[in-house]
Amino acid sequence: MSEAGDLDPGLTALTYDDVRAFTEALAAPLSPEDQTVQSMPDVSPTKWHRAHTSWFFETFLLEPNLPRYRVFDESYRYLFNSYYEAVGPRHARVERGLLSRPGAAEIGAYRAHVDEAMRSLLSSSLAPEVCSLVELGLHHEQQHQELLLMDIKHVLSTNPLRPAYTDAAAREYAAAPLDWVGHEGGLVEIGAGAPGFAFDNERPRHRAWLEPFELADRLVTCGEWLAFIDDGGYERPELWLSDGWVAVSSGLVRSPLYWYDGPDWHEFTLRGSQAIDADAPVRHVTYYEADAYARWAGGRLPSEAEWEAVAGDDQLAARCTQLFGEVWQWTASDYAPYAGFAPAAGAVGEYNGKFMVSQHVLRGSCRLTPAGHARSTYRNFFPPSARWVMSGVRIAR
Amino acid sequence: MSEAGDLDPGLTALTYDDVRAFTEALAAPLSPEDQTVQSMPDVSPTKWHRAHTSWFFETFLLEPNLPRYRVFDESYRYLFNSYYEAVGPRHARVERGLLSRPGAAEIGAYRAHVDEAMRSLLSSSLAPEVCSLVELGLHHEQQHQELLLMDIKHVLSTNPLRPAYTDAAAREYAAAPLDWVGHEGGLVEIGAGAPGFAFDNERPRHRAWLEPFELADRLVTCGEWLAFIDDGGYERPELWLSDGWVAVSSGLVRSPLYWYDGPDWHEFTLRGSQAIDADAPVRHVTYYEADAYARWAGGRLPSEAEWEAVAGDDQLAARCTQLFGEVWQWTASDYAPYAGFAPAAGAVGEYNGKFMVSQHVLRGSCRLTPAGHARSTYRNFFPPSARWVMSGVRIAR
Amino acid sequence: MSEAGDLDPGLTALTYDDVRAFTEALAAPLSPEDQTVQSMPDVSPTKWHRAHTSWFFETFLLEPNLPRYRVFDESYRYLFNSYYEAVGPRHARVERGLLSRPGAAEIGAYRAHVDEAMRSLLSSSLAPEVCSLVELGLHHEQQHQELLLMDIKHVLSTNPLRPAYTDAAAREYAAAPLDWVGHEGGLVEIGAGAPGFAFDNERPRHRAWLEPFELADRLVTCGEWLAFIDDGGYERPELWLSDGWVAVSSGLVRSPLYWYDGPDWHEFTLRGSQAIDADAPVRHVTYYEADAYARWAGGRLPSEAEWEAVAGDDQLAARCTQLFGEVWQWTASDYAPYAGFAPAAGAVGEYNGKFMVSQHVLRGSCRLTPAGHARSTYRNFFPPSARWVMSGVRIAR
Amino acid sequence: MSEAGDLDPGLTALTYDDVRAFTEALAAPLSPEDQTVQSMPDVSPTKWHRAHTSWFFETFLLEPNLPRYRVFDESYRYLFNSYYEAVGPRHARVERGLLSRPGAAEIGAYRAHVDEAMRSLLSSSLAPEVCSLVELGLHHEQQHQELLLMDIKHVLSTNPLRPAYTDAAAREYAAAPLDWVGHEGGLVEIGAGAPGFAFDNERPRHRAWLEPFELADRLVTCGEWLAFIDDGGYERPELWLSDGWVAVSSGLVRSPLYWYDGPDWHEFTLRGSQAIDADAPVRHVTYYEADAYARWAGGRLPSEAEWEAVAGDDQLAARCTQLFGEVWQWTASDYAPYAGFAPAAGAVGEYNGKFMVSQHVLRGSCRLTPAGHARSTYRNFFPPSARWVMSGVRIAR
Repeated sequence: MSEAGDLDPGLTALTYDDVRAFTEALAAPLSPEDQTVQSMPDVSPTKWHRAHTSWFFETFLLEPNLPRYRVFDESYRYLFNSYYEAVGPRHARVERGLLSRPGAAEIGAYRAHVDEAMRSLLSSSLAPEVCSLVELGLHHEQQHQELLLMDIKHVLSTNPLRPAYTDAAAREYAAAPLDWVGHEGGLVEIGAGAPGFAFDNERPRHRAWLEPFELADRLVTCGEWLAFIDDGGYERPELWLSDGWVAVSSGLVRSPLYWYDGPDWHEFTLRGSQAIDADAPVRHVTYYEADAYARWAGGRLPSEAEWEAVAGDDQLAARCTQLFGEVWQWTASDYAPYAGFAPAAGAVGEYNGKFMVSQHVLRGSCRLTPAGHARSTYRNFFPPSARWVMSGVRIAR
Repeated sequence: MSEAGDLDPGLTALTYDDVRAFTEALAAPLSPEDQTVQSMPDVSPTKWHRAHTSWFFETFLLEPNLPRYRVFDESYRYLFNSYYEAVGPRHARVERGLLSRPGAAEIGAYRAHVDEAMRSLLSSSLAPEVCSLVELGLHHEQQHQELLLMDIKHVLSTNPLRPAYTDAAAREYAAAPLDWVGHEGGLVEIGAGAPGFAFDNERPRHRAWLEPFELADRLVTCGEWLAFIDDGGYERPELWLSDGWVAVSSGLVRSPLYWYDGPDWHEFTLRGSQAIDADAPVRHVTYYEADAYARWAGGRLPSEAEWEAVAGDDQLAARCTQLFGEVWQWTASDYAPYAGFAPAAGAVGEYNGKFMVSQHVLRGSCRLTPAGHARSTYRNFFPPSARWVMSGVRIAR
Repeated sequence: MSEAGDLDPGLTALTYDDVRAFTEALAAPLSPEDQTVQSMPDVSPTKWHRAHTSWFFETFLLEPNLPRYRVFDESYRYLFNSYYEAVGPRHARVERGLLSRPGAAEIGAYRAHVDEAMRSLLSSSLAPEVCSLVELGLHHEQQHQELLLMDIKHVLSTNPLRPAYTDAAAREYAAAPLDWVGHEGGLVEIGAGAPGFAFDNERPRHRAWLEPFELADRLVTCGEWLAFIDDGGYERPELWLSDGWVAVSSGLVRSPLYWYDGPDWHEFTLRGSQAIDADAPVRHVTYYEADAYARWAGGRLPSEAEWEAVAGDDQLAARCTQLFGEVWQWTASDYAPYAGFAPAAGAVGEYNGKFMVSQHVLRGSCRLTPAGHARSTYRNFFPPSARWVMSGVRIAR
Repeated sequence: MSEAGDLDPGLTALTYDDVRAFTEALAAPLSPEDQTVQSMPDVSPTKWHRAHTSWFFETFLLEPNLPRYRVFDESYRYLFNSYYEAVGPRHARVERGLLSRPGAAEIGAYRAHVDEAMRSLLSSSLAPEVCSLVELGLHHEQQHQELLLMDIKHVLSTNPLRPAYTDAAAREYAAAPLDWVGHEGGLVEIGAGAPGFAFDNERPRHRAWLEPFELADRLVTCGEWLAFIDDGGYERPELWLSDGWVAVSSGLVRSPLYWYDGPDWHEFTLRGSQAIDADAPVRHVTYYEADAYARWAGGRLPSEAEWEAVAGDDQLAARCTQLFGEVWQWTASDYAPYAGFAPAAGAVGEYNGKFMVSQHVLRGSCRLTPAGHARSTYRNFFPPSARWVMSGVRIAR
């Protein structure tokens, strides 16, 4: 989290309203039925996201800090706790889709109740650590904005009707030939050090040793992925990590998620079914696919330190495209604590640290990431088998 | 199905509107979110029931018989086929809860579309076999009315908020001491023979040999079940069939479904959480529990022929209470074809026959059964492990 | 069980040695490794069969009746109890294949120990109910002799080497055209009534009503089954019970177990891999397959009462072939207690009754059934999905 | 692998006999039944280990290099391939315990056949790369010697009789107070660089940056682990990684594997059941447990670079005990390729690289590791949930 002194309550109140309103804007096109479905254990219903982000402010800000705050509904403490053991028992994640009540409208009322109280809190004089928690809550809500969209995409994809979330026009792409950005290696510093917000897992800034390497100046495209498929990429065990080959050889994974083959390859998107755009970055691939592709292409995945050493260097970053705003980029690095890492005090210390095993770090940001939420030190993380994430590939060598 | 000559199209049209309106009345208290959830594979969402019963009329009546009928939506053919292989592929049962679209309102429009076309069809001169199919469709919809309520009860039961479907007052019970109704045995006739509607599985009427027996004049009560629990009923393997003991000894089944223990035993009902009424019939028990209880009580479950030999005999039936309208009553009989059984011709021949294995017959009807849907030859059937059914126990000896 | 007065201890002693020696003769061709493997939960290792049958005599005969009998090993009480809850806890069925100890040789010593004590017991004057238990123990061991062979066949079948249990010559078949044996129906008596051994589930003899029917005079052959396959038998849902179609349409069941297709159909047998003999009875089919075949052939499966009404009538039986000694024949009857059934007193009352749900009765006997173990009232039973049983089909109409 | 020039064929021949004989010595106390059982998917039967290690020599050495070599049995190519996709299809790992044939004696004959041919090969003049493969095969066999013992320990542990593998006396321990060995950090070199054998995953030697740290001078003891248990270590979610807490809170993991509680804590060992020795190193713990313990103790797990920076430095290593020969020590490092890693050419390139995801590195060696198989650069690896491995804990801070 940021240093306390950086926060201006007035600005935060403004931001607070913006962030909260944006969540509601994302949910607005979705019917009550849409907001209820959980299509697999990793996915949460839209109305759950809307409620849980409010629960965060109610639990960590309003209850401890706003005198005479009235909890909206005692049962929400249980229903909308995601994974905070210190806060008490909680509703099972895999059963979020069983809850028809509270309905979408009632959760709208919950959000309004929390927002009114938060505005009251934000208009008072706040201790620095409270300001930090507000800021954390807003970044937390932005994470869920992105998840909300990834999740509803999965929900809609399971419907044979292939419904569209939006009728916005598709982004247009024109991929240039791939070029390489070189780095001479040596001792570099990575992680968040300067003032400004960062999650605890981005700290402390620390040194890492790199051998010389090169990073691709753009993402792998769908056209390149089609070449990988056509070259038998999903049929050649020598390209695959053993765990990945199990899913591939059993037929469970034959292409990026949401791709389907007919007379031509198509892809399910938030705009419904679309023909594959060969110039667009490939997305919704597992770590195993990213790794196999990189091997096939004669490269490898970058480590997160390598990625950050380029993205965090203005001159090198200027020579790259698509570092942010397209797809989260798998790195070869497992999600581990930085040397000197210390989780935040209290229940919010569960935010990041306890997930530091059996996951891989993804860097950058994606098309669904809210404005202002990306930075070069950001460490996103998912298990190597995750596909519903908007994940893609940038290779190194 | 009934003999064709019995049908008066005018009466059927009247009934058609009544039956269809009743389904909508049952769904009316439920929000779009409520109507979307599938809480386990056996349960279907409310809006699916509303759509599937309409699909039945569209597929078996309107498409073959109403000239120029316009199908409401081609995709519904796939989405709302329950299990008719002859009609084509269908959406997987376990994934019914993944469908947020079509929404509850759109399914309302589907019902209106089908109803308008059906009224047009029913106003014309119909061949007897078409009349029979209309009648089958109405009885089919009545079955789903009962299932809709059993299913939404299960859906709501999975919600920690324990929401109520209705605020109607509870029925009041006063159980008399159990008495026995004797039958001398011999060659009896069971099954549907007379004119009037019956499902194909109730036919033909045929002879069966019975040894002398006695049937309890009322159902087993919750108070009696509490005595069974207190006597270690769920802890004594000698009372249980082996398959039942597996579920009991592993802790999965410790009381009727929806009962839960606190300071006192309570039960989740369509009216929310209620204290157990000792005089009310026990319900939501598996076949294994029914069988174990009967053994504990020194009796056994009746065969379906025994049950019908009493219920179908006016004099004997008059000496019994609760034959209908409380709970479906487990019998010792597996669900098998009657001697001479022949399924109906065409796709509706899949209605009953193909389920005749590994299920047990339940007789009577339950509190959720629509008026006019019960009869003494009716054969309901479920697997022995089913608990979400409103099932209960009447013992014999 | 038989009436007590029928037993001659001298004869029993003789039989005892014969039965016990036959088990060892069956196990003799099997290595210690062969005797250890459990290839699926339904299968038990050979050495477990050898031990469990001895445990039966030790537990039910020697401990209660032989003064100063020394239990061979206290731990065997736990290890070799199959399913008798009244005898105490037991080793989990699915883990029988995890036990490398006691080894095959040690179990041989256990058998010798029990046999010596049993000879001592049998040389004394025995109460009639003890004689009955000895007789039950011998019939129990004969059941396990058959199971031992069915189980080792499955064990060896999972080995890519396709090893043979025996090099005995194949039986030769020449199937005649199928003919029908008619029965006029009416009130018949079935079940064991006369003196002589029978399991409790065969009693009491009681009346049943039959409509007129015909029973095939021979079993369904492999050649007929090939015609069923060639006619799309495994691809036509209208032939199948719904539960059966699930296994068929998912590809799990495409032919009788142990058949495999290459240039020609072959079958794994106790003599290793063999070409299909078109005249031989088909075997290792599920109830679902038997039922589907019968429907395809324009018939149905007989009820167990129908089967016994023919097999128990000398004149009718004389017109049939293959009633015994080839394959157990699936009947349409679920495994339920006969009217008036009472399980035996004590722990051996668990022998049959507690399995009376969700299984179907098979009649006759099979090639693996020991001499003297078959009779027309015998009720074998297995779940409808069982295939490793040597099960076949005789149709009725 | 080592540089080719280092190998002296004469010495290798000697070593070859020693290594091969040692495998047979380890299997000697085990009956044919013991050698057949597979107690869980990760475990392989003893006779499979004996055969697979021979298959390695047959496939990679004899077939390509020994003129007129006669393959012992063509089917072994399929049966005893562990995971080499390039060599062809293979028998499923989870089904190794289904194979009763070939028996233990036949595998003995296979080993003798391979050994005779290998001696012939080793007596000839060999190309350096062939020498390297022989060396790899011997180290491979040593790995399986250790696995054979870990696996048979698990097999025997599933037997309620708790049989002992050996009656050797227990090692005696006397734990000194824990002390710390400091390292000043900076740029260090890790990995195998010098001549001498190393697996491909230990190469190349490369630089890594370390912050200053301290490493415990001995392993965590059973007594310390009992204090962890007594302090609620398995009941406090704040100590655990989220994935680990799932197993702990569901009751699946409550103590080190093989520990069981009675009047006192006991442990199943290769010497049968033994009382816990408070001074002995704790073993058979998951990564999650190791990590939780370290957090509870106020420390953390070392990275593999930290471990090697101490163990590979003679002066620092001299101040530590139990670096080798007791338990494999979990490190915080995931199993990833070293910068510059290149797998070996050909099928043996599958040896290590394809497993580099979702596993953690363990360092040191354990009591079951064969003499001469340990070194400071050795990278053992297992998934974080593995417990049947002889794994333990050394903490850092």
